[in-house]
Parts: sequence; structure tokens; C-alpha cells
Amino acid sequence: MRIFDLAREHAVIGSAEAVLGWDQETYLPSAAAAQRAAQLSWLSAKAHELATSGDWQRALEDAEASAETGDFTQRANLREMRRSFDRATRLPVALVARDAAASSLAKHAWAEARERADFSRFAPHLAGLLDIAREKADRWGYTGEPYDALLDGYERRTSTAAVAALFDSLRPELRRIAASAVEVSAVHAPSLPPGPYPLAGQQRLNAQIAAELGFDFQAGRIDTTHHPFCTTLGPRDVRLTTRYDEGDFTSSLFGVLHEAGHGLYEQGLPEADFGLPSGSSLSLGIHESQSRLWENHIGRSREFWNRWYPVAQECFPQLAGFPLEDFLRYLWRAAFSPIRVDADEATYDLHILLRFGIERQMVNGSLAVADIPAAWNEGFRELFGFAPANDRQGCLQDIHWAMGGLGYFATYSLGNINAAQLHAAACSQPHIAAACKQADYAPLLAWLRSSVHAHGATLDPAELITQATGAAPSPTAYLAHLQDRYL
Amino acid sequence: MRIFDLAREHAVIGSAEAVLGWDQETYLPSAAAAQRAAQLSWLSAKAHELATSGDWQRALEDAEASAETGDFTQRANLREMRRSFDRATRLPVALVARDAAASSLAKHAWAEARERADFSRFAPHLAGLLDIAREKADRWGYTGEPYDALLDGYERRTSTAAVAALFDSLRPELRRIAASAVEVSAVHAPSLPPGPYPLAGQQRLNAQIAAELGFDFQAGRIDTTHHPFCTTLGPRDVRLTTRYDEGDFTSSLFGVLHEAGHGLYEQGLPEADFGLPSGSSLSLGIHESQSRLWENHIGRSREFWNRWYPVAQECFPQLAGFPLEDFLRYLWRAAFSPIRVDADEATYDLHILLRFGIERQMVNGSLAVADIPAAWNEGFRELFGFAPANDRQGCLQDIHWAMGGLGYFATYSLGNINAAQLHAAACSQPHIAAACKQADYAPLLAWLRSSVHAHGATLDPAELITQATGAAPSPTAYLAHLQDRYL
Repeated sequence: MRIFDLAREHAVIGSAEAVLGWDQETYLPSAAAAQRAAQLSWLSAKAHELATSGDWQRALEDAEASAETGDFTQRANLREMRRSFDRATRLPVALVARDAAASSLAKHAWAEARERADFSRFAPHLAGLLDIAREKADRWGYTGEPYDALLDGYERRTSTAAVAALFDSLRPELRRIAASAVEVSAVHAPSLPPGPYPLAGQQRLNAQIAAELGFDFQAGRIDTTHHPFCTTLGPRDVRLTTRYDEGDFTSSLFGVLHEAGHGLYEQGLPEADFGLPSGSSLSLGIHESQSRLWENHIGRSREFWNRWYPVAQECFPQLAGFPLEDFLRYLWRAAFSPIRVDADEATYDLHILLRFGIERQMVNGSLAVADIPAAWNEGFRELFGFAPANDRQGCLQDIHWAMGGLGYFATYSLGNINAAQLHAAACSQPHIAAACKQADYAPLLAWLRSSVHAHGATLDPAELITQATGAAPSPTAYLAHLQDRYL
Repeated sequence: MRIFDLAREHAVIGSAEAVLGWDQETYLPSAAAAQRAAQLSWLSAKAHELATSGDWQRALEDAEASAETGDFTQRANLREMRRSFDRATRLPVALVARDAAASSLAKHAWAEARERADFSRFAPHLAGLLDIAREKADRWGYTGEPYDALLDGYERRTSTAAVAALFDSLRPELRRIAASAVEVSAVHAPSLPPGPYPLAGQQRLNAQIAAELGFDFQAGRIDTTHHPFCTTLGPRDVRLTTRYDEGDFTSSLFGVLHEAGHGLYEQGLPEADFGLPSGSSLSLGIHESQSRLWENHIGRSREFWNRWYPVAQECFPQLAGFPLEDFLRYLWRAAFSPIRVDADEATYDLHILLRFGIERQMVNGSLAVADIPAAWNEGFRELFGFAPANDRQGCLQDIHWAMGGLGYFATYSLGNINAAQLHAAACSQPHIAAACKQADYAPLLAWLRSSVHAHGATLDPAELITQATGAAPSPTAYLAHLQDRYL
């Protein structure tokens, strides 16, 4: 169908953008930023033009008119392409331009405000971005509250009220687990033997592990950046990055494990459908479930290290006298940090609960911008027992709002919850559980391939989880996992 | 003017293509080739569409109508844009498509034919490409012979007859110099002390030298590929590549010196005019003059190594007992090789003379495809004194014909000749000559910046050389340089 050809062309443009974006983060010379911005802006304009064109609209309508004859995948593709088309075309060009300009300025203001721990420098920009976000929400439409329309952009057909109820139900137990984990760590927290852990050894170990987990280096690579990420440059071109700390080899390794989780998902999507919803990842909450599953459920498990600790000891002789038990304690260490990106598995979700609550009020209009720092500090104290030293360590720490990424944060915890439910469902099958005990993850990956990856974006997140696990999305498995590991 | 805006947009597309092309040669995972081809083909179609559009034509005509009021640069830009537009639009779309398809098939056939040293597998493809080349020549038009129109694509407004006369006049002297250099080498040819020359040391030395010559690493980088090249991804983004041989550090270094010569030219072009002829390199023969100047006139000079040999000795301890005199002999070694890319400075041009003569006859129709191997072997024997062992070492060795790159070869020798003339003219200024003696090349680079780089493509090659050196293009300086070094 013509609309699918157009979608594939759109994906060619988008994947070319991804190449330029990847290069920008990895190898771009410092003086080349302006030309790169011009190249990316040209490509993104062309992609937007195409996906909002009359040609596209007619092709979509033609396809919809004959959709009854299509199979499940075809109908899902048309449904999701309609959804994307409507979301894209409901925003007037002037609003999109205003949004881009405002967030570009806001990013600079935010960086300065954060540097000086001075929220007032960022406040007017944030107020402007919130106005734009509310206008976008109004144009996109919602049934419950404006925040729904924003959340829908990251986790489609998920209601704010349902997420709020979920987070409320989790709060007491998450606090209990975090407090206990932090307490245990304070008593018994072995330090990793001192470095250097040479870069070459880290790279060798990381690549060996990623390959054994199933990451295909014929169709991907690992490079170095300040912030680890995973990006897809084509159906057979998935690139991970990590960062290296010569004092702690686990920093780069867990970067790789997390990003390889994203990468395995991308490599597992139906290759022939690249550019169509059926060949695309589903949502941030599902993407994050894959990264968290490999990072935390596998990478921090005793079974994994039974297999890999001897290899790590060969790479890094200083580990010879450091027992596996101590190494695991080191991996499971927990501490209350004011900074989300420094948080461990046991305390991470508290950061998300705080952000989600504040952001929801900001967007819906029940929290004034000027009152954000106080609300943040009070909410933080309730969850963590102390207040951040300043706004740099508080409400100014994340770039998300400045980028206009309102509605994003909840997906981190949804990812954690989904990861646990998927992992538990897979391991309820004896052959998968038995293999995992031997650190053989091929059966687990095969299950994820068929239960998650193969579906692309043809199901909604809740449908996917229900179909894959036999139960509606629920935090039960996640809490059980945290209790098991930290209590 | 609108035509200049369109040209800048065209350069944004072209430079995005360059990013993808660079990645393809450096970091692309092996399974990703198909998507990369799709991305590149989409971009090149958009670039072609734009540069041959009615919009472009009207904007060019509008600009031409008001050109009398423009300054020299503006008039030169319009003249060259008209030339490019006419060359692009004189070829019907069907011919361009036939050319692309034929050369794609020919490349595969050539690789196979070369592998098996079997010219007959390549012959029908070459015959087809020659038909296409002749049709292109007819459509582009020429005054002397069809080959003129092809040569004009690489070295504009240069006549085949003039190049032939130049090469004829050089032949006896080049043969005499080559024979003598080879004879000297056979008697006294010190071997480089054995490796390993560790990669990290090579990279450090290469980068230090490139930076001191003036290559701006804020606006460029060096990566690793099988074949060294230089490519421009934006006005401040020039990327070099080289390859490493742990047994001989000079291999990667001379790759860098050659490509840095190209890179210094690209970095020296007027940045604000990126995408216009006045901000573009002029021709292959001028580009090659820059690479050859830094590679051969500077990089193989005694003065250069007075400065750098002690640094190399620090990087590579095995050089400690290897005298500078022996090292220079090693750099100046010469041998008759059947393979052009293995040829040294003293024998290189003989390979070009052979190719130019044969290619000219092929294109003009006076040499049948079936007779090429015999003509090659006979011509080779006349120049080198022996015949290649087979066609793999003979007429099948270069990819140029299979890529449809007919008319290209002469520019290598034109580059050598231009390099010598420019270098001699620069060094006729006492302050430049004095600085070069101290291996301080800043004054030389400043002279090249103002005499060559700053002009972009606003002059023709012969005009540029004449204006820069005060004399019409001539091989006198080149022969003097070769005699000085090899006799």
C-alpha cells in the first residue's frame, strides 16, 4: 500500500537523522555544531513535511477505506499511523515552531540556572513551556486531564489517574524497601578494590558479555559518550554507547547492560517492517522494561556473576582477592541521593514518584511555577527524610522539562514494573528458569523476542503485558523482586 | 540572492550525505549496508532534484540577469553554477539511471575479473560504460575530442591535447629519473628497523605532526579505514583517515600527511561561502597539488625530519640506532612496481602516463576494448622495461573505469606538477624558504591560504596557478624537484 511506502521513506529520513545524531554525540568536532544543526533541521523538516502532507493523508485515507480486508497487523499499522498523523497535524505549524524556539532557549536558561542553583532564571521559560504544553494537550484532546495528552505521547493510551493510583499504592512499600536497603548498605558496604581498571579490559569484557547476551555486533556497535544511550540507525544498525571510569569497571558495564537491553529490543523488531508501527518499538515504558530487565534482573543477579565474575577477575587482577559475595554486596549497595541519575535500584522509583506528582500539578495548573522549588523540597523530604541542599540538587537537576519533555518521567517506573512482570512470567517456565540459573539467557531472549519484540507497536502497552504474561499490568512482581533483593 | 540560498541548501544535503558516507567507511556495522544505501540514495535524489529543478533554473536566470552589478566573486559563482547546472541538466534522467546501474554492475564484475585476472569478464561492462561515457561527452559537448568533455568534469577547461603534449614532453625525463632512482635504491636501500611500531604511538605522532602543520582538530579528526581519504562534512568538519601497519609507522604517517594536505585545503576554503563555488575546492588537479605538496615536498624533506625524527625516535625506541641518513634513504627508496598505488614518488607518473594514453584512445574509439590488455602490457613494458604478470597486475588493477571515472587519471600527475610549481613559488620568498628550513611551515601555509585556498573555485586551474606563481602552468619545477631528490 502506498501509505506504507511513504512510511518507509519517512523511516529512511528518520534513520539518516539518527546517523547524524549519533555522530554528533560520538565523534563530531567541536567547531562543527552549527552545520550539524543545519543538516538535522533540514532532515527533520523534510520528514515532517512528508508525514503531514496531503499526499500522506490521501494515501492513509485510501488505505483506511480498504482496511477491513487487511489482517491484524495491517489494521494495527493503519490505526497507529492514523494516531500519529492526527497528533502531528493537530498542532499548527506556528505552535510547533514556538515550541522548538522556546525549548531551545529554555535549555540554555536551564543550564545557566542549574549552574547557579537559581530557579528564578529558569522559571519564566518553564512557565512558557507549560503554556505551550497545555495548548498542545488541548489540541490533542484528552478525556480526564491535560496531563493525559502529554503522557499519551510517551505511553500511549495510559491514563494519568491510573498511573497516580499505581504510584500511590506503591509509595509506602517502596519507602520501606529503600530505607531498609540503605540501612543494610550503611552497615555492610564493601568497596571495590581500587583501579585502574584499564579501558581496553573493560571494552573487551563489555563486548564479550553483550555478545553472549545476544547483541548482534554485525548489526550494531558500542562507542563512547558522556551519557550512555542506544540509537537505531537502521533495521540492522543499532548503536550503544557507554562511558568509562578507570576506577570502577561496573560503571561502563552496567551502561552497556542497560543500553544492550534497549538494543536487543531494537534488533528483535521485525526487520521487514522497519518504518511501520509493526516494526517499531512500542512505548518508553516497554523500552525501559527491556533495558531494566537486562540491567537489573539479569546483570545484578548472583547467577549472572557466577558465570562472569571469574572472567572479570581474569581481566582485572585486583579482583582476585575480592570475594564474589562482597562484589554482589557492592552491586546491591543503596544510598539516598538527591540526584536521580545517581540513584540505585532500591531508591530510584522514589525520584520518579516525586517528579510525576509535581509535574502533573504543574501541567494541570494546580501548582504555580514559583512554588515548584518548595513543593519539590517538601516532597523530597517526605520520601527521603532530608531536603536537597539547593535547587541544583533539587528541581533543576533534570533536563527533561527544559526540553519540553513533560509527561516523560512516569515511564521510568513503568519500565521497572514491566521488567519485573515480564521477567517473572518468563521464569515461570521451567526451561527458562533453569537456563537462567546457568547464566544461559538464550531461552529468555527467545521468549522476549516472541512475546515482546515481535509485536512491534501493534498492541497497546497494557495489552502487550497482558498477552505476554497472562495477567494485567501489576506491580506485584516488581515489589517481590525488590523485597527479595533488598529485604 | 535566492540561487545562493538554494546552493547552500544543496550543500546541507550534500554534507549530510558526506556524514553517511564517512560513517559507511569507518564505523558501519556489516549488516547495515542496505539501509545505508537507501539513505544515501534518498539524499542524493533530493540533492539532484533540487539542483536541476525549475525553481533552481529560474533563480539562476534571475541572478544572471542582474549579474553585471555583481563583484568578481559573484560573477564567478554564477558562471560556475551555470556550468554545473548545464552539465547536470544536459544528461537525460534515463541516461543517468543507466549510468548508475551499469557502473554498479561493472564494479561487481570488475572485482570478480580482477580476482581471477580474467579481463573477459569485465570487457562487456567496460564496453557499455564507454558507450555511456561517449554519449555523455556528446551531450556535454566538446571542441577537440570526446575525452575533453570527461576530463572537464575533473579538471575544468583543460584540453586533452594540451595534457597529452605535456605528458609527451615529460616522458623521457621521467623515465630517466625513475630508472636512476630505482638503480640507486637497489644498491643502497636500508630497511626500517623491525616493528612493532605500536598503534598508540603512531596515532600520537601523526596527530602531533598534523596539528603542527596547521590541521585544526577543533574542525576535524583522524579515523581508521582500509584506504586513506579526506572528506568534508561541513565547513568546520573535515575528516581524514589513514591505515596502520605495526611493522612500518611511515605508512600511516604518510597517509595522514597526504590527507592532511587535502584537509588543510578544505579547512582553508572561505567558510562563509560553503556551498558556493567561491567556498568550494577547484579541481582534482589542484586538490592533489595540496596533498602532494605536504606529503612529498614537505613530508619527505630532510628539513622536516631534522625536526621530527627525534620525536619519532622517542615514540619508537627501535629507531634509536637507525641514523637519520638511513631513514631518509628509506623514505626515498624507489622501485618499479606493476601496481600504481604501491608506486613511489620517482615512478608514480609513469603509471599515469600509461593510463591517460590508453583511456584517451578507449574513449575516442581508436582502441577496441578487447585490445586493452595488449595495449596496456606493451605500453607498460615500454615505460618500465617489463610486462605485468597478468591483468590483475595490469589493466584490471584500478577501480576507476568500473566506477565510470573515465577522465580522472591525468589529475594525479597534474597534481604533482602543480604541487612543485606552487612549492617553488612559495619558497622563492626568502621568509618562507627560511622558515621551511627550520621546519616552520606556518608561512608556507599562510601563502597557500591566500594564494590557493582563499580563491575557492572562482578561477580556472590554469588561472589559479598563473596568478599564484606568476607563471603559466609548467612542469619545470616538478622535474627540478625530482632531479634534485633522485639524481
